[in-house]
Amino acid sequence: MSQRVEDEKETGRVEAFSDGVFAIAMTLLILDVKAPKPADAAASGGLLVALRGQWPTYLAYLTSFATILVMWVNHHKLFRHIHRSNDTLLFLNGLLLLFVTFVPFPTSLVADYLQESESGVAAAVYAGTYLALAVAFNMLWLYASGKGRLLGTRANPTEVRAITRQYRFGPILYAVAFVLAFFSVAASVTLCLLLALFFAFTGALTRVFGDRPPGT
Amino acid sequence: MSQRVEDEKETGRVEAFSDGVFAIAMTLLILDVKAPKPADAAASGGLLVALRGQWPTYLAYLTSFATILVMWVNHHKLFRHIHRSNDTLLFLNGLLLLFVTFVPFPTSLVADYLQESESGVAAAVYAGTYLALAVAFNMLWLYASGKGRLLGTRANPTEVRAITRQYRFGPILYAVAFVLAFFSVAASVTLCLLLALFFAFTGALTRVFGDRPPGT
Amino acid sequence: MSQRVEDEKETGRVEAFSDGVFAIAMTLLILDVKAPKPADAAASGGLLVALRGQWPTYLAYLTSFATILVMWVNHHKLFRHIHRSNDTLLFLNGLLLLFVTFVPFPTSLVADYLQESESGVAAAVYAGTYLALAVAFNMLWLYASGKGRLLGTRANPTEVRAITRQYRFGPILYAVAFVLAFFSVAASVTLCLLLALFFAFTGALTRVFGDRPPGT
Amino acid sequence: MSQRVEDEKETGRVEAFSDGVFAIAMTLLILDVKAPKPADAAASGGLLVALRGQWPTYLAYLTSFATILVMWVNHHKLFRHIHRSNDTLLFLNGLLLLFVTFVPFPTSLVADYLQESESGVAAAVYAGTYLALAVAFNMLWLYASGKGRLLGTRANPTEVRAITRQYRFGPILYAVAFVLAFFSVAASVTLCLLLALFFAFTGALTRVFGDRPPGT
Repeated sequence: MSQRVEDEKETGRVEAFSDGVFAIAMTLLILDVKAPKPADAAASGGLLVALRGQWPTYLAYLTSFATILVMWVNHHKLFRHIHRSNDTLLFLNGLLLLFVTFVPFPTSLVADYLQESESGVAAAVYAGTYLALAVAFNMLWLYASGKGRLLGTRANPTEVRAITRQYRFGPILYAVAFVLAFFSVAASVTLCLLLALFFAFTGALTRVFGDRPPGT
Repeated sequence: MSQRVEDEKETGRVEAFSDGVFAIAMTLLILDVKAPKPADAAASGGLLVALRGQWPTYLAYLTSFATILVMWVNHHKLFRHIHRSNDTLLFLNGLLLLFVTFVPFPTSLVADYLQESESGVAAAVYAGTYLALAVAFNMLWLYASGKGRLLGTRANPTEVRAITRQYRFGPILYAVAFVLAFFSVAASVTLCLLLALFFAFTGALTRVFGDRPPGT
Repeated sequence: MSQRVEDEKETGRVEAFSDGVFAIAMTLLILDVKAPKPADAAASGGLLVALRGQWPTYLAYLTSFATILVMWVNHHKLFRHIHRSNDTLLFLNGLLLLFVTFVPFPTSLVADYLQESESGVAAAVYAGTYLALAVAFNMLWLYASGKGRLLGTRANPTEVRAITRQYRFGPILYAVAFVLAFFSVAASVTLCLLLALFFAFTGALTRVFGDRPPGT
Repeated sequence: MSQRVEDEKETGRVEAFSDGVFAIAMTLLILDVKAPKPADAAASGGLLVALRGQWPTYLAYLTSFATILVMWVNHHKLFRHIHRSNDTLLFLNGLLLLFVTFVPFPTSLVADYLQESESGVAAAVYAGTYLALAVAFNMLWLYASGKGRLLGTRANPTEVRAITRQYRFGPILYAVAFVLAFFSVAASVTLCLLLALFFAFTGALTRVFGDRPPGT
């Protein structure tokens, strides 16, 4: 087996491992959406009222789920270009996974504090976690793509630059969400949800105009 | 590598990721089946009585497990025909996974409220989640199979139409279960369990009469 | 692609999915091993005493972990011979996974009740779950191997019969553990632990004398 | 298919299964990082103060995450050399996974007791678990590599000896952390964190000077 074949096998296992972590982190989020206790539901005017009153929990769940899913789709996209692995890549990927697995904690903070007086602190931790995620994501890509360090031999330089340009916005926009948390919690959390949808959409645009070789 | 080979690799990772989410969601269901506390067991007439009194928990567990398993089998079956991927497919698949990971929440609602006066609300949320799952499932398949958009080049049009016809019943039947919840909770939950078994069985019929090339 | 290639791909996904469920069920067991609360530890004579007092939790954890691991090794072994899949196999495999994911519940029962007066009920549920697992395991294998239904074309009849003979003991021995629970809880739980070790060892014997083609 | 091909398939499934366990154990750690209750946060001087007061939880989380990640990277590295499998390997790998899945328990002990008077016991259990992990890791490697038992035919003896030499330090250093727990909890936990970083770094060194064939 040539060196290249061994390297591709390596990337395969990193991708599969990361997929596992993304899938588990996404699925664990539901553990924070708890059924109201029958006594509490009765006290708050019935089960339907109690379920409606949990809306911050659903919002936090949906936003975190969408963000991790979009992160997975983008991780996936980066690794179509990254063909080789080394310990620095594994370390940077590990840093990314550290923040991915951390997401359930700020999610539960936002769910518990969105209707409390200290919701600003919860929203700042929430947006701050996504900011850290976006920075880790950029570090991974800039390291792997810098001087074509770990890219496949067929990686298209135009596509690579397009990804670099596009991902640069992540940290800036999440920094805005972080600062917003100190002024308007609603605006900060809404921005986080919109960013997940925006990155899903940007991905779609890149796909249509960038990734596909013409005539396929 | 040709474009087709890359696309198949793509579908492979989507399938593996979805499998992970299905497997984790199925396995997390057990976290809601809790051992009764020794003091509570003693108060309710012994451990055996306490365990028997938890029957709504077991019923909800079994129904949810069977439904997610059947969803997985069918997801699996669709992706034998779907060979290409794009961002819309990833988005629709993500929507499906959102409802799959959500299942433990209505499951725990039904387990906690089946013997309470507000069991109807719990059963409606339960059947409603499955309705949303069935709709997302159909959206995924109709998008991927419409005009043969993402199917493999060898996909058999007769089989594809058979799947489309068969899956159309899912949303209708779960809508019936949803409406039933307002009249008879027992009937609604029983229908959900029967549907899981029915779709398992329909799958078997399709396999025998449809999928297999004759003479194999 | 010929039919056989498609079938092998199918088995691959069933195996990967089952592996996921085994891995998650094994890892979730630790959630029942909880750190004693500082106040409780102080009341019971210090942290070390409190940790020692939790021994039924560790025993249940170890036994369940070992049993699921051995089940996984054996599942693995069966699927080296099973090359084709159909809906009945998926259903029987699903039944097996149902009992695998159920294991954390009786494990936590045994951990909570081993030092209570009703430990017999907990031990019976525990051994009963393993009995159901062993029966599901045999059903899967007898269906797949009966008349060579789903075996690979190169499956060695002698090995197949050896597996059938060996696995037949599982349900009998777990039935003994189940009955024992009504007489001696200690004997029943110990037998469950020994059986996990025994099946691990039997596997090793089969490997040495059975699976390996001579001269390898 | 020759015997060797079957054996490689076997190793693939062991690796995938182990990856699943590593990924889940890592992701479950977050379940012990809990949002402070609004009432408790108010009582302790605000949410920000309450979050800061949880620092032992974050430290334990980070250390455990980093250790499991480094274990995964190294597991990965060993299995680039290990090409064949047998029941002893599966058993030793299972022992390693037992300790990996156990990690969330001592992690939560350290998080709960680091600011209590009995922090020494918690730190000793923590370092002791890592000591057991390091010993299991060495047993796996010494068994697989001894007399080249399960290595690939192309395994480079110099690299194999380098790994053996390097991993020998793990048990010694974790034994030091274990003994340190009885004198200085801070020193013991810090050493555990440093060891995770150190082994990440050692891995990088090996990669640069050892693994790569010259001229690649």
